[in-house]
Amino acid sequence: MIHFECDYLEGTHPRILQRLVQTNMEQSPGYGEDEHCKRARELIGARCGVDPSQVHFLVGGTQANSTVIDAILKPYQGVISALTGHINVHESGAIEMNGHKVLAIPGEGGKLTAQGISAYCQAHYADATHEHMVQPGMVYISFPTENGEIYTKEELSAIKLACQSAQMPLFIDGARLGYGLNAPSCDLTIEDIARLCDVFYIGGTKVGCLFGEAVVFSNAALSRDFRYMIKRHGGMFAKGRLLGLQFETLFEDGLYDEISRHAISLAMALKETFRECGIELYADSPTNQQFPILTREMAAELSKKYVFAKWADVDSEHVAVRFATSWATTQENVHALIEDIRAIAGAAN
Amino acid sequence: MIHFECDYLEGTHPRILQRLVQTNMEQSPGYGEDEHCKRARELIGARCGVDPSQVHFLVGGTQANSTVIDAILKPYQGVISALTGHINVHESGAIEMNGHKVLAIPGEGGKLTAQGISAYCQAHYADATHEHMVQPGMVYISFPTENGEIYTKEELSAIKLACQSAQMPLFIDGARLGYGLNAPSCDLTIEDIARLCDVFYIGGTKVGCLFGEAVVFSNAALSRDFRYMIKRHGGMFAKGRLLGLQFETLFEDGLYDEISRHAISLAMALKETFRECGIELYADSPTNQQFPILTREMAAELSKKYVFAKWADVDSEHVAVRFATSWATTQENVHALIEDIRAIAGAAN
Amino acid sequence: MIHFECDYLEGTHPRILQRLVQTNMEQSPGYGEDEHCKRARELIGARCGVDPSQVHFLVGGTQANSTVIDAILKPYQGVISALTGHINVHESGAIEMNGHKVLAIPGEGGKLTAQGISAYCQAHYADATHEHMVQPGMVYISFPTENGEIYTKEELSAIKLACQSAQMPLFIDGARLGYGLNAPSCDLTIEDIARLCDVFYIGGTKVGCLFGEAVVFSNAALSRDFRYMIKRHGGMFAKGRLLGLQFETLFEDGLYDEISRHAISLAMALKETFRECGIELYADSPTNQQFPILTREMAAELSKKYVFAKWADVDSEHVAVRFATSWATTQENVHALIEDIRAIAGAAN
Amino acid sequence: MIHFECDYLEGTHPRILQRLVQTNMEQSPGYGEDEHCKRARELIGARCGVDPSQVHFLVGGTQANSTVIDAILKPYQGVISALTGHINVHESGAIEMNGHKVLAIPGEGGKLTAQGISAYCQAHYADATHEHMVQPGMVYISFPTENGEIYTKEELSAIKLACQSAQMPLFIDGARLGYGLNAPSCDLTIEDIARLCDVFYIGGTKVGCLFGEAVVFSNAALSRDFRYMIKRHGGMFAKGRLLGLQFETLFEDGLYDEISRHAISLAMALKETFRECGIELYADSPTNQQFPILTREMAAELSKKYVFAKWADVDSEHVAVRFATSWATTQENVHALIEDIRAIAGAAN
Repeated sequence: MIHFECDYLEGTHPRILQRLVQTNMEQSPGYGEDEHCKRARELIGARCGVDPSQVHFLVGGTQANSTVIDAILKPYQGVISALTGHINVHESGAIEMNGHKVLAIPGEGGKLTAQGISAYCQAHYADATHEHMVQPGMVYISFPTENGEIYTKEELSAIKLACQSAQMPLFIDGARLGYGLNAPSCDLTIEDIARLCDVFYIGGTKVGCLFGEAVVFSNAALSRDFRYMIKRHGGMFAKGRLLGLQFETLFEDGLYDEISRHAISLAMALKETFRECGIELYADSPTNQQFPILTREMAAELSKKYVFAKWADVDSEHVAVRFATSWATTQENVHALIEDIRAIAGAAN
Repeated sequence: MIHFECDYLEGTHPRILQRLVQTNMEQSPGYGEDEHCKRARELIGARCGVDPSQVHFLVGGTQANSTVIDAILKPYQGVISALTGHINVHESGAIEMNGHKVLAIPGEGGKLTAQGISAYCQAHYADATHEHMVQPGMVYISFPTENGEIYTKEELSAIKLACQSAQMPLFIDGARLGYGLNAPSCDLTIEDIARLCDVFYIGGTKVGCLFGEAVVFSNAALSRDFRYMIKRHGGMFAKGRLLGLQFETLFEDGLYDEISRHAISLAMALKETFRECGIELYADSPTNQQFPILTREMAAELSKKYVFAKWADVDSEHVAVRFATSWATTQENVHALIEDIRAIAGAAN
Repeated sequence: MIHFECDYLEGTHPRILQRLVQTNMEQSPGYGEDEHCKRARELIGARCGVDPSQVHFLVGGTQANSTVIDAILKPYQGVISALTGHINVHESGAIEMNGHKVLAIPGEGGKLTAQGISAYCQAHYADATHEHMVQPGMVYISFPTENGEIYTKEELSAIKLACQSAQMPLFIDGARLGYGLNAPSCDLTIEDIARLCDVFYIGGTKVGCLFGEAVVFSNAALSRDFRYMIKRHGGMFAKGRLLGLQFETLFEDGLYDEISRHAISLAMALKETFRECGIELYADSPTNQQFPILTREMAAELSKKYVFAKWADVDSEHVAVRFATSWATTQENVHALIEDIRAIAGAAN
Repeated sequence: MIHFECDYLEGTHPRILQRLVQTNMEQSPGYGEDEHCKRARELIGARCGVDPSQVHFLVGGTQANSTVIDAILKPYQGVISALTGHINVHESGAIEMNGHKVLAIPGEGGKLTAQGISAYCQAHYADATHEHMVQPGMVYISFPTENGEIYTKEELSAIKLACQSAQMPLFIDGARLGYGLNAPSCDLTIEDIARLCDVFYIGGTKVGCLFGEAVVFSNAALSRDFRYMIKRHGGMFAKGRLLGLQFETLFEDGLYDEISRHAISLAMALKETFRECGIELYADSPTNQQFPILTREMAAELSKKYVFAKWADVDSEHVAVRFATSWATTQENVHALIEDIRAIAGAAN
């Protein structure tokens, strides 16, 4: 079987693995206070235009979301999210665990809009009983979204403005940030991301690392005592240098972008194939995940040779599925998949 | 101004006030372990067909909801509620405060359906990643609903069955229970309520008391150590006998129903008037709250003499409002209101 | 039996009861936005030297402690308390419910010392791993303490200074505040209390009310959105005017102090009797609670006629007990008790 | 500088590193559902005498403690721990974050006693106001303790009995379990550990892994839906096979014990040296951590060449410090340290 069901199937990019082996016998202090973390913080800080002290490393995405949100909100506040937001759907209540309601509002696809955010806040404060309702305290968006979509600079700027008007910080979940920034249609740089939000994270787990997410506070006022928060959330990694050396490797000579571009170029070949074959897409993703809507027969046929993820039931005859690519996806496998899609789709027509 | 904006405008029913005065100098132990609480538990237990030990008194509705739900759910579970459910909208995150997501699903009006509950649970367990999603752990409904609607015996029985199939307890918020049970169209008794759910409460605050809600566990397995939960939630009332003597008065000779019927009969007169005048209703309530959809002019005109609550913006020209009646509402005031509605509606036609 | 086991045995002071009866049919908005609450806030504000907007009414002490502490602390912070502090011992984990550790340190009797507070904070920050430990975020003291003791102006000023040095707010639990302020040896006024802490509350439940505690923020920066916090904690009382009218009555013409002085004078007569009879005291309380150490025989003998509370086992032959007085305690009953103590103690010698 | 300050200075044991490299390009499902996790669960299950389904892998110790305790306790319950317990001191309130008080009681050194546990529970239930106090709901001990001490089979059996009498599960924090089980004086096997508690974990981070702790439920009733709990706590590791392959390597041919014995034998050589030189020990540890009490001069002298951790201030002239050994500690370094201790101690005499 050839696997396309997600972007965390293999271990880690060979250059990270090599670094891990080389440094194995180094002795270093724990909890992120080592030289690798220091260097990784400097590289990321320089790249994003923030002070290195504002960079923190965590193990995974749910942990990052839960710790950042808990650090920012007051007890009676909630976090605005798209209905499809990871924190609203796929974190087993990790946000609620710390007492916060996810204020889920419809977006356009998986994207929030500035207008939707502003309307929600205005309605909240216009209600005479607003003290009886959870106060919106911050906004969470994913870039790319859970459906692979990206925001334009104009959209993100408008969202930032809407947040500022309502005095709410903006948090960007960048579990797949590289795939968003390197999408052909993306007009945002990582400095833009940093500038247009208050805190975001640079996903490692899904972009070549064994594990790890780099949380970056562009608004330093929000990161006070953040290490206490990390520890409290069970996220203070003992051998912190493992996180440091992975991000050091990703950011010292462009590996993060290189990995992302590789995966996107293969995903775009797939997308082109779906288009050619008249297969509709569940979401218009310019990133490493593609969501074709297949007939159930086509899905069954393809699943004899390929593994991919079910995404959503569309109707009794159609199902949306996910194909994901990564640093480890090969041209050969994608080529084989393309041939088979063409064959099956051709047969179907 | 004549007030109709809610059903907790005045103090307490004269018979409760009298009892309060009579017993003022009694000396009694605190925290609900006095003779008045004992007698009230016995009266309620006998009336509902549950053991008196399964009756607990709390001060208010949000406290009751938050304490009961926290007592029942496992940490990773959430509570299914209608989108309009009080716990989803008007408790400032009291449920999330204890770590639980409100799993809000659309209902019919403000009512959940057995089918909606079953479909939600089936979809949850059918999802391969269900361990990444909040597990549905109980169901919360209001009787009457926030919009004044009531469930039929058939509907409630079906919901109970759906809950049992999914091994979830059913909790009924009865903040206005009396108004539901005494609605002309109601085919349920309080014994039915007790039998068809696992835990419910008998609202006092809105049905003649100064304050107080009587939580009744018909499923005794759920009430283990409930007094620890009450204390922890800040709900262990020092002079507990105040709660006891109010419910004792309500349940010793039918006052609870008497109060409810008085309010409903006045509300029905209002409802009839709205119908006569061709004024649509936002929700078809057979209980003490009525929700006419007024033109904004009509609302402005009426508000010169009457106070009522805004309920929802319907469109640019119409607004849904709430008129509530209670034990303290007088025939005179309702009569005056009816005359004025007729006059204004007539003028508008 | 004559009862002395606590100071919340009866209903409420006759003047409050009368006010309750007089105002029963008034119509007022809910949730503390009525005229009685307004007037009570003004009276208390004027008396304490704070803005009336900084006064909030809650139902009970545990609720007040839990809501105030949750409003002030950051998630990773704890509250310093004496080992005997109510929040550390008798609130079933209401503070932990919101995620906060009670940092319990030994005091002198039930009192914290400025030195103890400072030493704790210095040790915390001196520890290289302090980010792995709960950060001290505020200080909680009771006035009077759970053992009836009071702080002097000098002691309280030193504690305030220690808190300021460590940038921690000071919170005073005044469940029995009147009994402390009116103790013969007290050199503090309520204005001093307000000035020397950041937030405190004026206990009503144990000083003549049916129920109710008035939370006063002298540091307005801490009260932002406090009404959201109240609602979330289940403490937003529907018929708020009941709280308002009670505190209005207590503070419009000195009733709060009158009640307190009555109870203290009776308690001092008891204390004098214990001294005369050579009965040691478990704590040297100048307030309405007295804690004699009785032989078990003496305790058994007295308990034939009087009810009092067991406080602590001292040794196999002695037990510390509590006698409490209140607005409702009569001269006659105290006189009878004094005679009986003298008789039993005389017999024992 | 030669490092002895902790047992997590280096990366991972060469055999684990090799396995990591070998398996890097394997494709596997995420979240612990891969073949390495399956095999590791089988190896551990067989070794401990529990069903493989009762083994779960987490990243770190605080996460393991917090998730297990949150899974077991009811909201109003607390966890009994020694004052020195990791959960009481060094987890930044991770236990309180989920609403639970740590009921810290004095032990003997860092060890709890059966008698201490029983006495605490009896006192709790004997108190008339026990519903106002946090209910003891489980017991937490560390094996070895934070001071390196171990329990005998007799002691642990007595604790288990005390827990059963009070109907409380027993949880053993085995962050350094291997060092305890392989201590020369240990009379317990890992099967004994499993049998004598309800849940424990096998520490990997400090015993040769990059990271990872294997939680083992010997009482399967406690592990219901534990994967929801893991996800909710941010501990569901995406590339779960990394945890699996590490524990697979540790348990397939005795590496876990081999690593432990290596570290202990070096630690015993150090301990013998302290004894020889008349240097007192802060705790009598038969495991890989040693806690000599040094004069401040001696500590200063040694710290010119060695890094070790400060443990506790003993008096103005003495300080307790920690030397830790691990799989990576060399004979050469220990030999050099021994020589230097002897030289400095000799000079001091």
